[in-house]
Amino acid sequence: MCGKIQDQANATEQDSAAVASEIGGSGTKPNPSSLAPINLDHGDPTAYETYWSKAGERSTITFTGDQSLSYFANAKNLCWFLEPKLEEEIRRLHHVVGNAKVDDHFIIVGNGSSQLIQAALYAVSPSDQPQPTSVVSAAPYYSAYQEVADLLRSGLYKWGGDAYSFNKDEPYIEMVTSPNNPCGMTREPVVNRPQGKIIHDLAYYWPHYTPITSQVDYDIMLFTVSKCTGHAGSRIGWALVRDKDVARKMVDLMVISTIGVSKESQLRAAKILGVISDSCLLDKSPGLENFFEYAQHLMAARWEKLREIVKVNELFSLTEYPSEYCLFTKEFTEARPAFAWMSCKSDHIEDTEKILRGHKILARGGKRFGSDPKYVRISMLSRDQEFNLFLERLSSIHGITSGN
Amino acid sequence: MCGKIQDQANATEQDSAAVASEIGGSGTKPNPSSLAPINLDHGDPTAYETYWSKAGERSTITFTGDQSLSYFANAKNLCWFLEPKLEEEIRRLHHVVGNAKVDDHFIIVGNGSSQLIQAALYAVSPSDQPQPTSVVSAAPYYSAYQEVADLLRSGLYKWGGDAYSFNKDEPYIEMVTSPNNPCGMTREPVVNRPQGKIIHDLAYYWPHYTPITSQVDYDIMLFTVSKCTGHAGSRIGWALVRDKDVARKMVDLMVISTIGVSKESQLRAAKILGVISDSCLLDKSPGLENFFEYAQHLMAARWEKLREIVKVNELFSLTEYPSEYCLFTKEFTEARPAFAWMSCKSDHIEDTEKILRGHKILARGGKRFGSDPKYVRISMLSRDQEFNLFLERLSSIHGITSGN
Repeated sequence: MCGKIQDQANATEQDSAAVASEIGGSGTKPNPSSLAPINLDHGDPTAYETYWSKAGERSTITFTGDQSLSYFANAKNLCWFLEPKLEEEIRRLHHVVGNAKVDDHFIIVGNGSSQLIQAALYAVSPSDQPQPTSVVSAAPYYSAYQEVADLLRSGLYKWGGDAYSFNKDEPYIEMVTSPNNPCGMTREPVVNRPQGKIIHDLAYYWPHYTPITSQVDYDIMLFTVSKCTGHAGSRIGWALVRDKDVARKMVDLMVISTIGVSKESQLRAAKILGVISDSCLLDKSPGLENFFEYAQHLMAARWEKLREIVKVNELFSLTEYPSEYCLFTKEFTEARPAFAWMSCKSDHIEDTEKILRGHKILARGGKRFGSDPKYVRISMLSRDQEFNLFLERLSSIHGITSGN
Repeated sequence: MCGKIQDQANATEQDSAAVASEIGGSGTKPNPSSLAPINLDHGDPTAYETYWSKAGERSTITFTGDQSLSYFANAKNLCWFLEPKLEEEIRRLHHVVGNAKVDDHFIIVGNGSSQLIQAALYAVSPSDQPQPTSVVSAAPYYSAYQEVADLLRSGLYKWGGDAYSFNKDEPYIEMVTSPNNPCGMTREPVVNRPQGKIIHDLAYYWPHYTPITSQVDYDIMLFTVSKCTGHAGSRIGWALVRDKDVARKMVDLMVISTIGVSKESQLRAAKILGVISDSCLLDKSPGLENFFEYAQHLMAARWEKLREIVKVNELFSLTEYPSEYCLFTKEFTEARPAFAWMSCKSDHIEDTEKILRGHKILARGGKRFGSDPKYVRISMLSRDQEFNLFLERLSSIHGITSGN
């Protein structure tokens, strides 16, 4: 799976000059076979760079050479490597947005939410079972769950597949992703048995992607800076954890696997989250647009353009989202997910990822998400120039027949 | 084990005011039972803060809000999340110091060398074995190896204990730590069978800790910023890996477990390593002392003081190190390890960690390293004030008899 990531990374970089030339080119159509692929496989959130350029000085941070040498950030805290300023800004942001209750939860910081998924699986797996506990998620599910669960052939847990098909009378762990990656829909647990532990992955539960319909209050909730602010390179995620023993076990995993989390990233994330909270509050950040309004407009405009092209093209189909009242924006809105979950309507086409690849659009096929290869997941978070090029290429796909 | 880390962390923080008061106090002896513990369990390298304060502006780095949003650092590279500047400075530092060959090796960056240990175990474990491959290391061995190997009850590898006792005719992985943590001695592999894979942990193979006796050139070599520069909070380690497939598998683990490594930490580490290389070169860094000379003098002075107290006290014994020619300093020197590996000479004392704890010195007992509880590992890398307080307390331990 990772070989694939690497191949796509190589493809993107090697052809970046060609992309640049095409974007800023002379207007003459390049030869299709020489086109540089656009990589929309990852949800690389570079779309938000423009906002952060505009934020200027207030989002800048400086480190002197003698700062943050110690492993410890706050030895009083159960999560002793968590910077107090980051904890403060995480709690503040959840209060400002109203998407999750934080007052009765421990905060655990991780190297991205990927590490927190592993930590949560470790923490809730019963240690007294003869067989590894099944980890399930309703298809289409986030492709990384299977990779994380099976990576080290753990005796504690293993991937158990689609939650809709899980019918064993034994302990299990269900990953509930809401809004869902890849499809953007709101999700609830589907197994609903007393032996289950539930991990709520809420990476996309922010007002730019989906209406905030309630202030959620689950036992384990995972969030990530990557998808909230766009700073994926910082590798900062956080978990809100109600139970102290679960929180402590998650910290144990983090200590043994990485002895905590980069202090630089934590302090920068604190700064960035602080700018976002300020931007939502009148008079707190004069001259800076509310981040979520900015990002919501950006996403809405992209979705509108994509839906228009898909409508004209008639070959593809996109997920539709209900209009719901958002407690943050105080308006009825539809979701504008970070990924488009697109399928091909043609009976002749079985592998949509392949079709797109033929048109130099790299996306992730449905099979990786436990779904039909007619589906494909496409990042909506690229820079403007890549996004526009993607639309141009998508609109050029016509008249596909069997064998294409 | 981690609960223990937490307990010690709590102890340290809760009593920090008391420590400060004692250090800067009135000169009257405090009541021993009210003393704040000094935590020398971790090798928390705060000793180097003073150097980095003196380095001033040249070691400062600033991040603007729109920097490093992407997951990718260099998609052309096998390790696509590795910042090119960090790779450049790692290669330059190894060339300047002459401790390891780097030109024929891939560089893989990790969240501290802890994650790289896991990645290396994953990468060299045969995937076709009916049983997990044994991970061994010669006692006394670094206590984290067992924790990492057994954490997730992996079906790929498991802790196999002291390498001196390993006599199975099957594949194995040997961790060779040189200089060794905890004891500071130079190490070679001890099992020496054809089915073995060897991972060289060279975290302490730097001129401040040990004479550089050769430019080593192993298949897998692990290093960490924590112990080289003192920036443990950054969580940056690197592996030098000769084989491309092994390197690729290590990258796979890093991608699945954390999708790479903090860009902020990488860029700051690049800056810091650059300052160190410059400090070693005449005219490159006017006004800044050669980092390794500075740190070597610091460590030599601490070791001299500790040996003096141990000599006078007569209750304890310290490891002795041979004088060897260092290719970097061009002098004969003894090792000045980051940890003191101390044992108690009294027949009445079986648990030296406990004795020290009774005198409010927290250190890690020999048992954790697969050794005798008469031994204890003590960090030599604390700030001056803690180190001096440690010496003071150690010198006050006298006349211990059975039952104390």
